[in-house]
Amino acid sequence: MFSNARPAEIRERILMAAAIEFADRGYAGTSIALIAERATTGKGQVQYHFKAKSEMAVALVRAAFSRAPFANLLDADSVHGLEAVVASIRSVGGAFRDDVQVRAAVRLMREYHLIPATLPTPYVGWIARIGALLLEAEAAGEVRQGIDSEVEAWHLVSYFYGVQEVSNRLAGREDLAERIEEMLVRALATLGVTTPERFL
Amino acid sequence: MFSNARPAEIRERILMAAAIEFADRGYAGTSIALIAERATTGKGQVQYHFKAKSEMAVALVRAAFSRAPFANLLDADSVHGLEAVVASIRSVGGAFRDDVQVRAAVRLMREYHLIPATLPTPYVGWIARIGALLLEAEAAGEVRQGIDSEVEAWHLVSYFYGVQEVSNRLAGREDLAERIEEMLVRALATLGVTTPERFL
Repeated sequence: MFSNARPAEIRERILMAAAIEFADRGYAGTSIALIAERATTGKGQVQYHFKAKSEMAVALVRAAFSRAPFANLLDADSVHGLEAVVASIRSVGGAFRDDVQVRAAVRLMREYHLIPATLPTPYVGWIARIGALLLEAEAAGEVRQGIDSEVEAWHLVSYFYGVQEVSNRLAGREDLAERIEEMLVRALATLGVTTPERFL
Repeated sequence: MFSNARPAEIRERILMAAAIEFADRGYAGTSIALIAERATTGKGQVQYHFKAKSEMAVALVRAAFSRAPFANLLDADSVHGLEAVVASIRSVGGAFRDDVQVRAAVRLMREYHLIPATLPTPYVGWIARIGALLLEAEAAGEVRQGIDSEVEAWHLVSYFYGVQEVSNRLAGREDLAERIEEMLVRALATLGVTTPERFL
């Protein structure tokens, strides 16, 4: 069926199929056969590209973590400080809701006990990025002077994680955008932002 | 081995063994045989008390949710308002770290996709309880007048959930008590508490 497709295209197609299956059924409920079927290819093709199911899980989690909102922003040169913190949190929230590869990665991270492979450590990259942006924000006078940027970044990421989790469990993430805005109002007050309306 | 033990004692012993196994190995990694071995009894005894592994999971999650810190406080008559909110959050934090039955329940809730049974919906009971306490706190002038107690309770529980999750993943919950205190400082400021030192 893919006789004319290049291997890289087939690999991408398989990964996208795996993302849909993992996001929907979780790690244990997904099989190579299901992934092959959704990718409209054969099990042999899947196993040619990925030796095991766990290899696909690792590839998806790595790809999601290297995405723009977690570590960098698309327009990193034009967005700075607190504006970039707010943009990053909104962007990750949108990805958790709308991007099946990110949703698959979030679910796989939650099920990491089941996966016989070392997944990247979650949160740390995003915490470091937000910490750096908070330093910029402090230098620009956007937040209270003397904040501990690392501690505040840890709390922003933790608060966000809890918001998306509870929104997911209680409302299937339907209220996630609204809950994130409520969170941002509270977080900006905590950071001593005197003109939150400039950023929200 | 338990020829003299009453059935209720054996049942409790089996549940405690199941809690240790579930907390340590997760739902998929735990078997009836492992639970029987840890309870120093036979598989037949386990299956006499619980028809399936999922029945033990449900029993553990139900028991954890009905525990004092989630819904009520031990001294409900002597602790009120914001003081009770702070006590409840600290108490749940301590249980997440030290109580193997609660740790098992938290892990089972996270792995709910794998469990062929309906688990209680998490968070809602605790959110309702904290919401009621925040109304008391407002009436007592402990927090800013006019807060939306339901929204604030939703955010307190979500923030707490994220704090314990990130503390668990990055530090094995070793910094959980400290992170919860940092969280409480931020949360009380958000609630407009003018004398946080009275409550922390």
